Amino acid sequence: MKSHTEELWFETRKRCEFINITPKIEEILAASGIREGLCLVNAMHITASVFVNDDEAGLHADFLDWLEKLAPHEPVAGYRHNRGEDNADSHLKRQIFGRECVVAVTEGRLHFGPWERLFYGEFDGRRRKRVLVKIIGE
Amino acid sequence: MKSHTEELWFETRKRCEFINITPKIEEILAASGIREGLCLVNAMHITASVFVNDDEAGLHADFLDWLEKLAPHEPVAGYRHNRGEDNADSHLKRQIFGRECVVAVTEGRLHFGPWERLFYGEFDGRRRKRVLVKIIGE
Amino acid sequence: MKSHTEELWFETRKRCEFINITPKIEEILAASGIREGLCLVNAMHITASVFVNDDEAGLHADFLDWLEKLAPHEPVAGYRHNRGEDNADSHLKRQIFGRECVVAVTEGRLHFGPWERLFYGEFDGRRRKRVLVKIIGE
Repeated sequence: MKSHTEELWFETRKRCEFINITPKIEEILAASGIREGLCLVNAMHITASVFVNDDEAGLHADFLDWLEKLAPHEPVAGYRHNRGEDNADSHLKRQIFGRECVVAVTEGRLHFGPWERLFYGEFDGRRRKRVLVKIIGE
Repeated sequence: MKSHTEELWFETRKRCEFINITPKIEEILAASGIREGLCLVNAMHITASVFVNDDEAGLHADFLDWLEKLAPHEPVAGYRHNRGEDNADSHLKRQIFGRECVVAVTEGRLHFGPWERLFYGEFDGRRRKRVLVKIIGE
Repeated sequence: MKSHTEELWFETRKRCEFINITPKIEEILAASGIREGLCLVNAMHITASVFVNDDEAGLHADFLDWLEKLAPHEPVAGYRHNRGEDNADSHLKRQIFGRECVVAVTEGRLHFGPWERLFYGEFDGRRRKRVLVKIIGE
């Protein structure tokens, strides 16, 4: 069994933002030399997500509106977590979008359907944060 | 390390529908000959989910009502994704129910609690769509 | 490839409760002798979750309030699942918080960011329920 480990750093300009990380993960997979196995990609922070969905700007705007409705940032003082913090809503948003994705590796490629793309989902950005990539297989 | 890869096709009659895929995944696991490892089952489309929950018709009806309340289909024009599309809500529903499950394989069986069953969750059906099964182990 | 399997039992005093299981999972990982691989931790019941987030009491209170708002327990008779049951809302809450986490194992440790902690999330407690830990690697 082989394994490959890499940490990626991100710093978004906005508080909430989605970044397509598929090309970067494909690059790391190619470098790993692993042909069959599993590739775990997870946020290393608890106010961010890694998820798979469509790379379409309208949908991303819908995602942000919807998350804001389900877990609003304001009023900040409405959350008990927000004593010296203002990011309780970011923790909630991340619970909906999830922490991680596990992607199959087949014949050296991410085994994706036609529209599957991997995203880093930031809900409390404007500072340096990490994503972990761990690939195991042969 | 062994690995086993299989794609399953589904075409639901309704727009939203849940299908118990547990027997099919058990069959694939048996065919793989893998006794200890991990079994990844994921939707290959971004308006569908794979999840584990109860096989109970009342609960499934509750799931559909609840998802419709959290991420309503109508008004279709209320979503920016819906330019030439009408499935923005399907992408949202899938974010709540998730893309994938990873199930432990122990002594050649899916290592499940008493009520755990695997489901394909379709939120934009009536066309052919795929689920991926990737098992690694020994 | 090595694998290690363990089931943990929990019985919460309250209906809904979060338990930090990170120290227990670290112990199991140390006992496994696995240095590089993947560690799956999942609820074996369908009204409970395993998730990663912050170990902060204010946030946990916010989580419970928020889940109650998104998937209220009352009115019990408002759910079709609740014929002889009263836990439809627990199944819904679990869908938001998820079934499982897959954590990378690097140099014999859970490969976590600074604030990542593993939790058992109970939504229908006061009885004995299980979590599964499956580690594969080398």
